[in-house]
Amino acid sequence: MAAPHLMTLADLSVPQINRLLTHSLYCKQISKPWLEPQTQKPSRKNQLRMPSQSLFNKTVALLFSKRSTRTRLASETSISLLGGRALFLGKDDIQLGVNESLKDSARVIGGMTEGIFARVGDHAEIEELAKHSPVPVLNALSSLWHPTQTLADLLTLHEHAHLFSLPDPNVEPVQDYKNMETSIKSRKREKMLTSLPELRPLTVAYIGDSANVLHDMLVTYPRLGHTMRVASPAKYRAPPEVWKRVEELGCDKGIWWGEDPKEAVKGADVVFTDTWISMGQEAEKAQRLKDFEGYPGGANPNWKFMHCLPRKQDEVDDEVFYGPRSLVFPEADNRKWTTMATFDLFIGRWNSGEPLDLKKADEEKK
Amino acid sequence: MAAPHLMTLADLSVPQINRLLTHSLYCKQISKPWLEPQTQKPSRKNQLRMPSQSLFNKTVALLFSKRSTRTRLASETSISLLGGRALFLGKDDIQLGVNESLKDSARVIGGMTEGIFARVGDHAEIEELAKHSPVPVLNALSSLWHPTQTLADLLTLHEHAHLFSLPDPNVEPVQDYKNMETSIKSRKREKMLTSLPELRPLTVAYIGDSANVLHDMLVTYPRLGHTMRVASPAKYRAPPEVWKRVEELGCDKGIWWGEDPKEAVKGADVVFTDTWISMGQEAEKAQRLKDFEGYPGGANPNWKFMHCLPRKQDEVDDEVFYGPRSLVFPEADNRKWTTMATFDLFIGRWNSGEPLDLKKADEEKK
Amino acid sequence: MAAPHLMTLADLSVPQINRLLTHSLYCKQISKPWLEPQTQKPSRKNQLRMPSQSLFNKTVALLFSKRSTRTRLASETSISLLGGRALFLGKDDIQLGVNESLKDSARVIGGMTEGIFARVGDHAEIEELAKHSPVPVLNALSSLWHPTQTLADLLTLHEHAHLFSLPDPNVEPVQDYKNMETSIKSRKREKMLTSLPELRPLTVAYIGDSANVLHDMLVTYPRLGHTMRVASPAKYRAPPEVWKRVEELGCDKGIWWGEDPKEAVKGADVVFTDTWISMGQEAEKAQRLKDFEGYPGGANPNWKFMHCLPRKQDEVDDEVFYGPRSLVFPEADNRKWTTMATFDLFIGRWNSGEPLDLKKADEEKK
Repeated sequence: MAAPHLMTLADLSVPQINRLLTHSLYCKQISKPWLEPQTQKPSRKNQLRMPSQSLFNKTVALLFSKRSTRTRLASETSISLLGGRALFLGKDDIQLGVNESLKDSARVIGGMTEGIFARVGDHAEIEELAKHSPVPVLNALSSLWHPTQTLADLLTLHEHAHLFSLPDPNVEPVQDYKNMETSIKSRKREKMLTSLPELRPLTVAYIGDSANVLHDMLVTYPRLGHTMRVASPAKYRAPPEVWKRVEELGCDKGIWWGEDPKEAVKGADVVFTDTWISMGQEAEKAQRLKDFEGYPGGANPNWKFMHCLPRKQDEVDDEVFYGPRSLVFPEADNRKWTTMATFDLFIGRWNSGEPLDLKKADEEKK
Repeated sequence: MAAPHLMTLADLSVPQINRLLTHSLYCKQISKPWLEPQTQKPSRKNQLRMPSQSLFNKTVALLFSKRSTRTRLASETSISLLGGRALFLGKDDIQLGVNESLKDSARVIGGMTEGIFARVGDHAEIEELAKHSPVPVLNALSSLWHPTQTLADLLTLHEHAHLFSLPDPNVEPVQDYKNMETSIKSRKREKMLTSLPELRPLTVAYIGDSANVLHDMLVTYPRLGHTMRVASPAKYRAPPEVWKRVEELGCDKGIWWGEDPKEAVKGADVVFTDTWISMGQEAEKAQRLKDFEGYPGGANPNWKFMHCLPRKQDEVDDEVFYGPRSLVFPEADNRKWTTMATFDLFIGRWNSGEPLDLKKADEEKK
Repeated sequence: MAAPHLMTLADLSVPQINRLLTHSLYCKQISKPWLEPQTQKPSRKNQLRMPSQSLFNKTVALLFSKRSTRTRLASETSISLLGGRALFLGKDDIQLGVNESLKDSARVIGGMTEGIFARVGDHAEIEELAKHSPVPVLNALSSLWHPTQTLADLLTLHEHAHLFSLPDPNVEPVQDYKNMETSIKSRKREKMLTSLPELRPLTVAYIGDSANVLHDMLVTYPRLGHTMRVASPAKYRAPPEVWKRVEELGCDKGIWWGEDPKEAVKGADVVFTDTWISMGQEAEKAQRLKDFEGYPGGANPNWKFMHCLPRKQDEVDDEVFYGPRSLVFPEADNRKWTTMATFDLFIGRWNSGEPLDLKKADEEKK
């Protein structure tokens, strides 16, 4: 049985992606009551259902050649919930490919841990790790792809599906996700778990660099029935290896690409912006900011705002960022739950999201 | 219900401080048997009472912008005992306020962890974190305050209360805290826990910089009935925001402040020294050392020595530091137990040390 | 009862070393099933025997003044399996002997943790730590010794004992350690554990620097009945304090030392190479490489290759390194299991490998 790796969502089928999203919401609902302050007597917690302990006694190596707040928090906290131990190795702890070949490192690290979550530079590096590792290698962020971010974005959209279902687009939707959270809590108390809300086909605008976050959106959203509208200068268009995957998956039919942000946001239900200057390329900053002049202004009355964070001050106004349109913090929180689901399935069970056998799952829950 | 934060002991009432000290000794006595070598059969441990598991499944973020041995050891080890997971983020892992606003970081980190223990630079930074964090923020050390150090000092004094109760101050007291530890152990074996020994009003001398450690002493010791005698050059006197708190709490009446160490130690039961040169201000070293010339020599025959460590060689002689007057290592050890108590109450239970309902506590123990 | 420390295998008797090796294989067999993917229902795991939990609730401080992949992975993962918590303090977290004396650091760290695993520079530093620490101090690597590496090498040789037992040395042995692993697994399933295979007296060649790895071999292999043949320039011969231990233990009679690698590998069953340029001495590289010119070529038809890793490209050909002669990856994996056994005994139980009372051990297993 070969270890399942996750390089990009392009490697997964639609049912696999949906399984990951469903499992993420399940992990979130099961785990949340454990994270509340223990204000009542401890014995109450004995009645709670434990999250999957598929990482019990196990260690996951976090190989991060660049610093990362969200990805690190999401992985370390979710590994704990799964009963395992995160072993963080930053650029001062290990220099991949410098003192030892990637091949040897993959074999040695994979020989002493049960999974590898790697944030590398060039995407070829994580492919090399996956090729030689005896245990699952998951992409925490590479030059080409960022699959765990896209999963978190999708979970957030599904959870807020009701915001996109208003009969009249001119009516400002009630920003009630906080109440939703509460009602999920009460349901959990009664051991009733909500299932993943259905999401109608959305028009999703993306304004920014053509970077790893966008690439995973391009190979995923169109397959899920959504339309993508990207505003990014043509010269920063996604590289050929990404377009190849886009076309293989038939996603190109669901993508509009232009240079004008105003055009991109037409009819958009959601507007994503990302840092215009991909990390590590500060030198080109001035030029790119100029290319992106003319960023939004008008868009659909009902649009929601998303951003993978961290936010640079000049990327978006406070009014939007902290306002009722913004889903950025639920989006950040969901990094944890999609990471937990991915680790549980890929690393804990060597299961790359095969659609759930509900009968078997019911037995597992018992 | 709002998350309780801990910025300084000035925020707590005397009953809250006493609850924290009582709970610290409780945590220490419950935990110590677990930390002994397993020389007998493992089954013996099954008969031991578990420490509070209020952090079970939870993660506490340690945001340390400066390195710290004691604070880090105390927090990581006590989080483990409480069933939780410490996630250390040093200055190479996260640069607070650099890539992302403190506001956003507080919201994101607080969205994925259940508590934040922050060692920042300027005190305004931790106030900003607390303002925006959805989970408790505890001050691990700031430019103004160091509450967990003062709690550890107080626990140490209470545990050694018998040393200050000798009928004749001219008789050198028996340094029997090691035996005390042993007798606590035997009592624990029989599931009998000692309660916090009462401490008579002490005269406490402090020789050194007017820094964060001293500030929390100034707002605390006088309220507990002790007298403080500080020798520190007038120009290094605590800043206005500290004096404001001192006066609000009526602590100024219990504080003598002068420039002459010999005068300060008159009648002192305990002499604290701290580094004269606050960390990060090495430049002023030469000047300050000169200001502090004339450091002790004679003091009360019965005085005890305390120091928050690390010790610089020229701050105190080996004879005192390693001698029978010294409480410095029990003081360092107690960092762990007061941190454990604080985390258990504030982070685990969102309880800022409300005086214990003994009947309810008895039930919890069952 | 004094805390047991481990500075070098020279401190241990042959029965103590054998107990550590036996216990390593036991730890490996007990732990491995927990580390497999959870492909069946979780309930299956409930039937597995738990590894020793002698570090439950405890913390082990990892003081690493130099980066180390293998030693760190081995220690952090095995501490988890033993129920404990690793607290890694690298050179950016603590500077041993800089801000605080080694004596004070040993006392403070030992006061808040239950064991210290230290990778220091000069060997005198770890001796100083051990002298003042109230808890066990184990040598993770010093300028003079590397005991945990030698234990891993020996476990690997024992596990592959069958490869050295062929009747005809001219017949290439079957490289069947993978099958061996599998058969161990099936036996584990039936709760039948293999005991440590006996190893016939071997001729062991070592080509490389006279460094810490070699030093622990010199004081160990001859006592276990093996012959050592070392090729290293006379001027890099082990320092006097090492030779003193070699002679005290009567190991010198089992050591041949020369400068010619071709001579050294004569009759060798195993050939070790290590980096020729000890870490931290890059400056002398050119000179040393020249000294070592003439590295092997021909050796016994049946020889196996070992290397403590990381491998530098020019130390050995891919053909050997990745070929059927190579034991380098099982050797790296075993770092984990010998570390686990050492931590369980020394830190968890304050037992420095006293030969096992089998009757008592049987009871423990119950």
